[in-house]
Amino acid sequence: MAYWLADQGSELLLVSFDYGQRHRIELDHARRIAETLNARHEIVDLTSVGRLLTGSALTDANVPVPDGHYTDVSMRSTVVPNRNALMLDVAVGAAVAAGADAVALGIHAGDHPIYPDCRPAFLDAYARLAKVANEGFLVAGFRVLAPFLRSSKADIVRTAAALGVPFELTWSCYKGGPTHCGVCGTCTERREAFDLAGVPDPTIYVGAEDAEVSQ
Amino acid sequence: MAYWLADQGSELLLVSFDYGQRHRIELDHARRIAETLNARHEIVDLTSVGRLLTGSALTDANVPVPDGHYTDVSMRSTVVPNRNALMLDVAVGAAVAAGADAVALGIHAGDHPIYPDCRPAFLDAYARLAKVANEGFLVAGFRVLAPFLRSSKADIVRTAAALGVPFELTWSCYKGGPTHCGVCGTCTERREAFDLAGVPDPTIYVGAEDAEVSQ
Repeated sequence: MAYWLADQGSELLLVSFDYGQRHRIELDHARRIAETLNARHEIVDLTSVGRLLTGSALTDANVPVPDGHYTDVSMRSTVVPNRNALMLDVAVGAAVAAGADAVALGIHAGDHPIYPDCRPAFLDAYARLAKVANEGFLVAGFRVLAPFLRSSKADIVRTAAALGVPFELTWSCYKGGPTHCGVCGTCTERREAFDLAGVPDPTIYVGAEDAEVSQ
Repeated sequence: MAYWLADQGSELLLVSFDYGQRHRIELDHARRIAETLNARHEIVDLTSVGRLLTGSALTDANVPVPDGHYTDVSMRSTVVPNRNALMLDVAVGAAVAAGADAVALGIHAGDHPIYPDCRPAFLDAYARLAKVANEGFLVAGFRVLAPFLRSSKADIVRTAAALGVPFELTWSCYKGGPTHCGVCGTCTERREAFDLAGVPDPTIYVGAEDAEVSQ
């Protein structure tokens, strides 16, 4: 999404969130991607909030990260309650303070079955709230952008390849290790997306490493 | 509001926010009030967010807290962008995680002219968002409560007196001192509210202390 916005000529303030997620390694990857764009990058500490949002596999050490596809019922355990509204609220507050004309988020069609806060109805309700909550303080024409709302992950890989995204710097895995696990829900979908898009996948997966070691 | 909810027989989780406000002394007062109710009280650290919400007199040391009434244009400087949506989103996330059937906030009619995120339209938009963002994860009949939405501060003082609220533990002043200043917008309205309600005001104001000293 950052590359897509930069390609439109946008001036960027990139915001990442530490909410106590196992895979906080994603924050370091976000920082490195921001550097490639020479964009300002802020990491917002929401770990204090994360302690109240218990019961999710992403933030609670007692709940395991499930493997397989997002359409499985077990993937419901990866929902962090109200997470996207919270993140958007920080972004909108920062946008009001900075006089920015838009905020953007990277929700996509593959997340619709499991995550209610990734659906078109969520985007509509959120955009309405942002306008009402900040009436008189927003730049005229302020928008909440979700450029991949109706795109599959394969669509996104194709778009990203065309934009020159450094895929080797991107991160998906929920397991929290130093290498993509290759089997959790988000790794499963990452691998499929590259396959379906016909784009070479530079990601090193633990399984792939093991295979090389055992050869 | 906590006393009002306790009076209804509600089981409470009280949440306060440190967002870098000058008057963080309010957090200590909130803790003491929670203790009188034997209610769980959590202070959520949003100081990392506060750094992005620049330009408000409440969080930015370079912007002075104005004196006088809320209806003055200068009071616009006390708006913290998107603050109430952010706080509510933390509360709703905690409610989903805890299986709670409601969240409540203390917005009131006196705040409507200046603060867009205290108005009835905000409450409606927010309640809709909360349901859409957490579809399938909320307790049936989940509600966003704002019991004082259409009450004046004088109405609230009357209700609080009837509920036995320990007024000496409550805090309003925005200036950040150890004693209520008596002249900032929120002190001005606090004093008026007690006057209008005909309820004795136990608050010690700096001005009143000075007057006693000079007698």
